[in-house]
Amino acid sequence: MEVIIMKQLLEANEKVAEENRAYFSTRHILAVNLMGAPGSGKTTLISALAKKLVGIDVGVIEGDIASSIDADRLQAEGIRSSQINTCGECHLDARVIRDGADRLNLAAAIVFIENVGNLICPAEFDLGENLRLLAASVPEGDDKPFKYVPMFSYIDVVALTKCDLKEAVGFDGDNFRKGLSAVSKAPVFEVSIKKDTDEQGIDALADYLRDKYNNLKKGWL
Amino acid sequence: MEVIIMKQLLEANEKVAEENRAYFSTRHILAVNLMGAPGSGKTTLISALAKKLVGIDVGVIEGDIASSIDADRLQAEGIRSSQINTCGECHLDARVIRDGADRLNLAAAIVFIENVGNLICPAEFDLGENLRLLAASVPEGDDKPFKYVPMFSYIDVVALTKCDLKEAVGFDGDNFRKGLSAVSKAPVFEVSIKKDTDEQGIDALADYLRDKYNNLKKGWL
Repeated sequence: MEVIIMKQLLEANEKVAEENRAYFSTRHILAVNLMGAPGSGKTTLISALAKKLVGIDVGVIEGDIASSIDADRLQAEGIRSSQINTCGECHLDARVIRDGADRLNLAAAIVFIENVGNLICPAEFDLGENLRLLAASVPEGDDKPFKYVPMFSYIDVVALTKCDLKEAVGFDGDNFRKGLSAVSKAPVFEVSIKKDTDEQGIDALADYLRDKYNNLKKGWL
Repeated sequence: MEVIIMKQLLEANEKVAEENRAYFSTRHILAVNLMGAPGSGKTTLISALAKKLVGIDVGVIEGDIASSIDADRLQAEGIRSSQINTCGECHLDARVIRDGADRLNLAAAIVFIENVGNLICPAEFDLGENLRLLAASVPEGDDKPFKYVPMFSYIDVVALTKCDLKEAVGFDGDNFRKGLSAVSKAPVFEVSIKKDTDEQGIDALADYLRDKYNNLKKGWL
């Protein structure tokens, strides 16, 4: 019975995800579903990318199980954010995204959807996004693509965060890429953001997103 | 309907958890449910603790969504382990624990149950354990007790892992303890395990577990 209910839930979710896709397309929005484990650096990544994406409106739909710490932080930095609290739920679903997008009220923009910190459940729920970005942090370890296969199979692009800690934690980049390439063709952008003045690799990832946005725009015009 | 199904699931789980509790008690087992985010250092912690708990049999029920990487590693170190694959499920439940315990076939022992790497879902499923240990790693950040309240409320004791990275990531220990103490009375053991010869704080946590085990034993005699 549990399995049947889950199937029904996922089918209902898929229907709303399709509506979200149409909504984003009509408004010329590139929607990026940003997933990752707790503490993988998702909010810091959004903050750094938003500063680089000059000339494009950026908004954030911020998913958390309870608090508004991340949305408050982004708002304080001048990044338009709408908070969704999942009330304990371990992932965002398509239904709550529409409300978050309506509150942002953006058009011709990149909208980051910061999912709940979880390397498992979000990979089951299509949100109607255009791009699935995974923040995988170096201190989590190079074996994660071997252990969290559904998530690493699900994503389009990886931001390997906290790369400044590679040596301190003995991160084996070859092993990480071996595990990833076994299940995914996602390119990897290595980044490190210690503070605004001490960051590496953000430009390349911002350019990648800008290209995706411009390509989508061509389709819209 | 989703809510009703979840309620039924949790009630069924609670019943089996009670049976597990009786099973562990009859066999004089201290069962430790070890939870934590992906990459928080759960397996490394078990490995280090097992070496310190000289004179007590130690076994591990190893929960993963698919692989057997962690159980293989522990077995290679001579630590008796039984693997449970959840087939994608984001947590262990009481039902699968009994099978894992039977395969270990231990008595008068400490059994670590390494839960799936997830800071949300495992906090809903009582396994019939005697103690709930959370591995929270320094690079995850000092704000996690504020953001993952159900988990930090659920646990009995915290191992703050990877403490050697405190300075590198600017971890604010006071903020972490402030968040934790708002929802829990769990003591915090600060540990760091870089290799066998370079570790800090494991003795104190091993002594804490040994005391818990000895106290339980008094009740059994």
